[in-house]
Amino acid sequence: MFFELKRGDLGNTSAMYARTFFEELDIDSVTVAPYMGEDSVTPFLSYEGKWVILLALTSNKGSHDFQLTTDTEGERLFEKVLRKSQQWADDQQMMYVVGATQGRAFEDIRKIVPHHFLLVPGIGAQGGSLEEVCKYGMNSQCGLIVNSSRGIIYADKTERFAEAARQAAQEVQQQMAEQLKKL
Amino acid sequence: MFFELKRGDLGNTSAMYARTFFEELDIDSVTVAPYMGEDSVTPFLSYEGKWVILLALTSNKGSHDFQLTTDTEGERLFEKVLRKSQQWADDQQMMYVVGATQGRAFEDIRKIVPHHFLLVPGIGAQGGSLEEVCKYGMNSQCGLIVNSSRGIIYADKTERFAEAARQAAQEVQQQMAEQLKKL
Repeated sequence: MFFELKRGDLGNTSAMYARTFFEELDIDSVTVAPYMGEDSVTPFLSYEGKWVILLALTSNKGSHDFQLTTDTEGERLFEKVLRKSQQWADDQQMMYVVGATQGRAFEDIRKIVPHHFLLVPGIGAQGGSLEEVCKYGMNSQCGLIVNSSRGIIYADKTERFAEAARQAAQEVQQQMAEQLKKL
Repeated sequence: MFFELKRGDLGNTSAMYARTFFEELDIDSVTVAPYMGEDSVTPFLSYEGKWVILLALTSNKGSHDFQLTTDTEGERLFEKVLRKSQQWADDQQMMYVVGATQGRAFEDIRKIVPHHFLLVPGIGAQGGSLEEVCKYGMNSQCGLIVNSSRGIIYADKTERFAEAARQAAQEVQQQMAEQLKKL
C-alpha cells in the first residue's frame, strides 16, 4: 500500500478540507497557496466569518524562486496573485501573507491591496524589521497582523522559559504599541 | 482565540510536518505546492524511500491562473518549477503532478523531465484522455502514475456500488494494459 498525503488541492477536495477545518474543527482561518488558482481557493470562501489567508510574498529565502518572477506584462507573480485573487473575495474574507523580510515591497503591495489585512511573519528569528514593516505596510486602520513565533517560543531553553518568553512577548508588544501611535 | 491552520510553510515548520507525515504516520509521499520555493520543499526530501510530489501543471481550471504565466525569459511558470526543482532532488525522490487534461503539454514537460514519474490525476470525472496522456507523456519505463478517483468511488450511489466500482476500476485497468503494450 502506498499512502499519499495531499496538501492543497482542486475544488471538490478543497471543499472537503474546508468543511473539516471550518465546521468540524471550528478553525478561524486557513492559509492557502495560490499555485492551483481560483477553484482551489474558492471552496474555503463559503464560510461566513472565516478567513482565507493567501500566500503572496513569503518571508523565506525560497520566496525568490518563483514569487518574484516577472511576466511578459511586467508583473511579478506575487503581484498577479494579489490582483487576480481580489476577484475571488473581498477584504472581509481574504488576507495575504507578506513576510517581514520583504522591506520596501510592502509599498508595491499596498498599491494593489490598500485595504486588506496583511499577515506578517518574519520579525525576530527571521530578521525582519517591525519598524520597516509598519513604515511601508501600515494603512489607516493599521491593516497588519504581525506574528512572532520563534522569537518567543524559543526565547529560552531552561526552566526560566516562562519568564523569558513573557519578556520577549512584552518587548514585541511594546514595539508594536510604539508603532501604533503613528496611526 | 483565533485558530489558524497553515498548509504549506517555510523550512522549520516543513521539517516538523515532514517528521509527522513520514515518521509518525508512515506516509509514503507528500504532495507539495512549489510557490514558497526550495526551503519549503527540501525538508520533505531527507527521508529515504519517501517521495515528494511537486505540483507542476494541475488538472483543474485554476491551473490557467498562474501556472501558464510566461516570464520575460519565455518560460512558463510550470516549466520553471520543473527546471529549478531538479536542483533539489533527483528522479528517485521527486515526481510531478501533471493533469490528464493538459494534453500536448506533456510533450513540453517530457523535454524538461524525461525520466521522472508523473502523477496524473484528471482522467474520468475531469475529462482527461488516458490515450492522450500516454501518447505524449509515457517514457521508455512508462513513467506515469495515472489516478482515477471519482470515476471509481462515485461510480454508483445505490447498493450496487461495490459491483459498479469494481467494473469502473477494471475498465481503467484494461485501458491502461492496452496502453502499456505500446512500451
